[in-house]
Amino acid sequence: MKFVSFVCDGKSSWGAVEEQGVFDMGARFGARFPDLKSYIAAGLPCEVLSDLGDADCAVSDVALAPVIPNPDKIVLAAINYWEDDTDPDKVPTYPVLFLRLPSSQIGHGAPLIQPRSSQKLDFEGELAVIIGTGGRHITPEQAMEHVTGYSIYNDASVRDWQKHSHQFTPGKNFVGTGAFGPWMVLPEDMPSPEVGVTLTTRVNGVEKQRTNTSRMIFDIPYLISYISTFAPLVAGDVIVTGTCTGFGITRDPKEFLIPGDVVEVEVEGIGLLSNAVVAEETA
Amino acid sequence: MKFVSFVCDGKSSWGAVEEQGVFDMGARFGARFPDLKSYIAAGLPCEVLSDLGDADCAVSDVALAPVIPNPDKIVLAAINYWEDDTDPDKVPTYPVLFLRLPSSQIGHGAPLIQPRSSQKLDFEGELAVIIGTGGRHITPEQAMEHVTGYSIYNDASVRDWQKHSHQFTPGKNFVGTGAFGPWMVLPEDMPSPEVGVTLTTRVNGVEKQRTNTSRMIFDIPYLISYISTFAPLVAGDVIVTGTCTGFGITRDPKEFLIPGDVVEVEVEGIGLLSNAVVAEETA
Repeated sequence: MKFVSFVCDGKSSWGAVEEQGVFDMGARFGARFPDLKSYIAAGLPCEVLSDLGDADCAVSDVALAPVIPNPDKIVLAAINYWEDDTDPDKVPTYPVLFLRLPSSQIGHGAPLIQPRSSQKLDFEGELAVIIGTGGRHITPEQAMEHVTGYSIYNDASVRDWQKHSHQFTPGKNFVGTGAFGPWMVLPEDMPSPEVGVTLTTRVNGVEKQRTNTSRMIFDIPYLISYISTFAPLVAGDVIVTGTCTGFGITRDPKEFLIPGDVVEVEVEGIGLLSNAVVAEETA
Repeated sequence: MKFVSFVCDGKSSWGAVEEQGVFDMGARFGARFPDLKSYIAAGLPCEVLSDLGDADCAVSDVALAPVIPNPDKIVLAAINYWEDDTDPDKVPTYPVLFLRLPSSQIGHGAPLIQPRSSQKLDFEGELAVIIGTGGRHITPEQAMEHVTGYSIYNDASVRDWQKHSHQFTPGKNFVGTGAFGPWMVLPEDMPSPEVGVTLTTRVNGVEKQRTNTSRMIFDIPYLISYISTFAPLVAGDVIVTGTCTGFGITRDPKEFLIPGDVVEVEVEGIGLLSNAVVAEETA
């Protein structure tokens, strides 16, 4: 069982995905659970998933939204993977964290928007962790109990705006740049990202990034614990765990996305997040 | 007429403030306008303000909440004032922006929380701009039409966590550190911050910061325009316009807040935002 948020006939909903297709849970249980976040907050009660009857449509029939379109917060780690040439003496003491606004998010299949004001749109394939039970001052030992599921994120970044100052905010918050999908997978339905799953990013079918989540510098329990020291985590919060080398500005020569490019981020056990780049004017 | 958000008998509401006291607008019009943000989004329709009868209580009877407890976004500028010794050649080209989570906010009179994990809590007195009509790609010339009101912000910062990495996120998002109040004042009811109003910050009655909003490096129209280039502004968004010198870590020796300290930020034409520091354990 996977979970999606989607828009169908102009109406926002959420659903459960099985092999047969999408079960529109918003249409069935919208009064109790208006969105996936509220279902997560209730602890994913399984009784509503029984006797669903026939699927309502195919996944390809709906416009997927960001898995959690309306999270209370999206906290992202910057570069967070050991590379073959990482100097242990130069690894930072603390993770580099920044925030994304929900308004910057898009779902699987939606256009990744190259803004009018920049020619320096770049990709970053990442594993996304979705919080179930909230909390503050969560210890690393307790942290994994707070994870309700996993998904994939393309933390697409507008590099010139990211470097307008020492704070990343503008370049990480352009409309149509935070791709999040296609769905949420439950921890029991995939290999443990702690033990390690493969993460790859391709542009137009050419592999650009490849790593394994076991190579994170600051692992998931650490990130959850660290973040919860300053901010209370709540159901539906999204922690995007950072990327490895290979994104456009790390390449020689540098590569930036242009309209028509297709970015695919794949995480073993979760699936494939794909978005085509479209210029802002025509999006 | 000023506007507040507050909690009374455990219930969140919002109100209009006149000399007679607070008119509980949530109790009167909650079905149409459940919170101040929704009233702002509707364009502050004045017909609901006529024939209000008697005030419901005194301002001192309610627990003031952050003026907008639930903004879609809070965008803050770092240090943003010309000082007498500012070198024009060293002024940055672009503003330094970061984000605050709504969960870090508190209202006037609420405890400003010194976290367990730090002894380096600092203050920053600032002017807050509240957005009325939203928009994207707003020009500086149009920008002031998007301002619905002003308030005061103490962007209290946990300096060691702010400097854990090059991104400010942790140190700017501790629970109980974003003081926002006491109320929203309409532009027509105060001198223009563009022309200039005095901004002062005091700790335990001793003046620590003094400037005039006419001395902003990146002024309000510029900030609105710049932010709206990457993110769509919506009703109730908060832009915190940066501080001047004089906060704790700029002082020699450095000064940090300790439990019992009272921080007051005053902006001419708006009022006074006051918060006493309380240690996390006892808050």
